Amino acid sequence: MQRLRLELKAETDRSYDVLVGRGILNDLHREIKGIGNFSSYGLITDDFVKTLVAEQLQANLSSHNIHSELLSFPPGESAKNMGIVLQLCEQLIARGFDRKSLLIAVGGGVVGDVAGFAAAIYMRGIPYIQVPTTLLAQVDSSIGGKTGVDLPTGKNLLGAFHQPLLVVSDPDVLVSLPVETRREGFAETIKAALIADAELFSLLEEERACLLENDNEVLETIIAKAAEVKCRVVSHDEHESGLRRILNFGHTLGHAVEAASQYKLTHGESVAAGMGVAIRFSQEWAGLDRDEADRALKLIRGLGLPTELPQDIHSESLLSALENDKKIHGNICHFVLISQIGKAVVQPITVGELQRKLEEESTS
Amino acid sequence: MQRLRLELKAETDRSYDVLVGRGILNDLHREIKGIGNFSSYGLITDDFVKTLVAEQLQANLSSHNIHSELLSFPPGESAKNMGIVLQLCEQLIARGFDRKSLLIAVGGGVVGDVAGFAAAIYMRGIPYIQVPTTLLAQVDSSIGGKTGVDLPTGKNLLGAFHQPLLVVSDPDVLVSLPVETRREGFAETIKAALIADAELFSLLEEERACLLENDNEVLETIIAKAAEVKCRVVSHDEHESGLRRILNFGHTLGHAVEAASQYKLTHGESVAAGMGVAIRFSQEWAGLDRDEADRALKLIRGLGLPTELPQDIHSESLLSALENDKKIHGNICHFVLISQIGKAVVQPITVGELQRKLEEESTS
Repeated sequence: MQRLRLELKAETDRSYDVLVGRGILNDLHREIKGIGNFSSYGLITDDFVKTLVAEQLQANLSSHNIHSELLSFPPGESAKNMGIVLQLCEQLIARGFDRKSLLIAVGGGVVGDVAGFAAAIYMRGIPYIQVPTTLLAQVDSSIGGKTGVDLPTGKNLLGAFHQPLLVVSDPDVLVSLPVETRREGFAETIKAALIADAELFSLLEEERACLLENDNEVLETIIAKAAEVKCRVVSHDEHESGLRRILNFGHTLGHAVEAASQYKLTHGESVAAGMGVAIRFSQEWAGLDRDEADRALKLIRGLGLPTELPQDIHSESLLSALENDKKIHGNICHFVLISQIGKAVVQPITVGELQRKLEEESTS
Repeated sequence: MQRLRLELKAETDRSYDVLVGRGILNDLHREIKGIGNFSSYGLITDDFVKTLVAEQLQANLSSHNIHSELLSFPPGESAKNMGIVLQLCEQLIARGFDRKSLLIAVGGGVVGDVAGFAAAIYMRGIPYIQVPTTLLAQVDSSIGGKTGVDLPTGKNLLGAFHQPLLVVSDPDVLVSLPVETRREGFAETIKAALIADAELFSLLEEERACLLENDNEVLETIIAKAAEVKCRVVSHDEHESGLRRILNFGHTLGHAVEAASQYKLTHGESVAAGMGVAIRFSQEWAGLDRDEADRALKLIRGLGLPTELPQDIHSESLLSALENDKKIHGNICHFVLISQIGKAVVQPITVGELQRKLEEESTS
C-alpha cells in the first residue's frame, strides 16, 4: 500500500468589517469599491424589502456606476427552502453571473440565510455581503457566516458556513418595521448583554424608553455593542464547536417552546420566555444572585417580551421537543446559564432535575 | 459610523491521507478508527456499485463493529442533481445522522460529487471519506474536495469545496469495470503525466500492454503516481485560483468537444481529443519538440483513445462552446499547454489565432 499525503495547511485570513451607522447605506458604493472589483453585482431581497429598501439602494449604487441586478422572492420563513435557492441560482446563470460576481443580501434573517447559502454553493462559492434590514439581523444573524435553509422535517438542516466580505447595518432602515419584528431584535440584544456585556445591559436599562420610541441614535449605539459581542464570540469559534454555543442562551428552551407552541409564539417571544427560564435556572445552578436575576427579568418584560412559559405548554412536551432537537445526550442536557449579568457558563443538567424545574415553571 | 472588525485569522490543517493499494478496502475499518470516533456511519453509493462493492464493504465494516446505513441512488450522470442530494439528506435525517456522523462515498465520480456535496451542506457540513471505485475517480476526481451537482442549464453549477478526511483507492475493485470506463481513467492518468510527471509518462509507455490487460500490480503503481500529481497540485492551490488550472490540460477544449458532440463522445474520448489538439498547439506556442509530441500522441492512441477532433465538429461550434463555457475573456483564451513532457504552461491565445488553428484541425 502507498500512503500519500495531501498537505493542506494554510494561514487564512477571512476577517471582515461590520459597519453600523445611520445613513451609511448611502455610501455602500464606496465600501464595495473598497473590498474589490467584481464582474457583476446582484441584490438579493424579498418582495417586501424590495420596495422598502432594495430598489432605492439599486438606484443609489447605479448613480455611482455600480450596476446591479435585483432578484427577489416572497417574504417570510416559508421562503427559506431549497426551491428558492435553486430559482435564484438559475436566475444568476441566466444573467451571466460567474465566480467573480458579488451578491448583496438585503433583508432580514431569511434573506441573509437564503442569499448567503446561494452564494455558498453557486459555482462552489462566490463572495457576498450582508445588508441586514431588521434589528434581529443587524445585531445577530447577519454576522458570523451561518447560512442555510429548512427542510420539511426541520429547520436549518441544509446550509454552510460561508463568511461575508462585509456587513453593513443602517439603523435608519428599521423605521418601517412592525413592532413585533423589532421585539425579536430586542430579545437577541438582551441575550448579547446577558452573556457577554454588562455595560450593554446597563445601557439597555437606561435607554429602554428611547428604544421603545425608535430613537435611532440610541439604536445605533446598541446595535454596535450587540454586534461587537457577536463578532467577539464568532472570531473565537467560527464553527460552533465551543464558545459559540453561549449564543444559544435562551434558545435551547426557546426553540422547544416555539415548537411546542406549534409556532404560535414568535421566535422573539419564545427566546424571551426561554431566557426567563434560563435566568431562574441560573439562580439555582449557576450562582446568579437574586437582584441580578430580577433586573434581567424586568428588562425583558420592560421591552414588551414574556419571561414565563405559556400556560398551555407542559414540561413533557418541552422535554420531548428537546429530545427531538438532539439537545439531550445520554441523560444530560447542556444548558447555557449566566453566573452574573455579562458572564455565560455552560452547565450539564440531568433530565430528572430538568423535569422537576420545568414542572415548577409550568405550575407557577 | 462604527467600524467593527470580525477577526477570523486561523492556521488550519486539513491535510489528509490518500491510500492506494490492492486489497486495502478490507482494512477500511482500521483506517476509519484511526481518523476519529463518529456517532454513525453512512455508505453512499449508486445502485450499480451497491451490489458490486458497497454491500460487501458494509458487511466487512460490520464484522469489525462499524455498523453503517447503506443509501443508494440510480447510477449515471443524470443522478448528479439537487433532487438526489435532497433525498439523501432527508434519508440521513430519518436515520438520525448528526454533525458527528461520517459519510463514506463508495463509487465513481458522480457518487463522489453527490455524496461529497451532501456532506458539505448537511447540517452545515459533516465529515466524509472517499472510496473511489473507478480508475477516473481513483486517479483524479476523489482527490481535492471538489463536490457538486449539475443544473439543467449546465454542469457543476452548484457545489462546494469540501475536503474529505481520507481517500482509499483499491485497484482490485476495478476488475469489473467496462473498458470505456477504464479508458476515461487512462485519459486523466496521461494528463497527470504530461503536465507534471515525466517519469509516470515513461512508465505508461513501458506498461501500456499490462494496463490494457488489467494488471492490477501495475495499476497500483500508476494510480499512486497520478494521485500524487493531483495531491501536489491541490495542496498548492485548493480553490483553483492559479496552479490548479493546469489540471484543465485537454479539458478546456475537451468540454467544448463534449458539448459540440451533444455528449455522443464520452468524457474520456473528448478529453483525449482535447489533449491531442493541445499537444499540437504546444508545438506551435509552447516550444514542445516534435519527438515528444509524437510520443504523447502515440501513447494516447495506444491506450485506445482518439487524438483528433471528430470530423463533423467544426471550429465555429467549438468556439461558441468555449464562449458559453466562459473560457474566452475579451479576445483571449487561456490554454494549458506543455513545453515538454511533464511540464505545463498556461498560454494566452487570441481568438483569431485559435480560429485559424482549429480550422486546420478540422480539415486535417
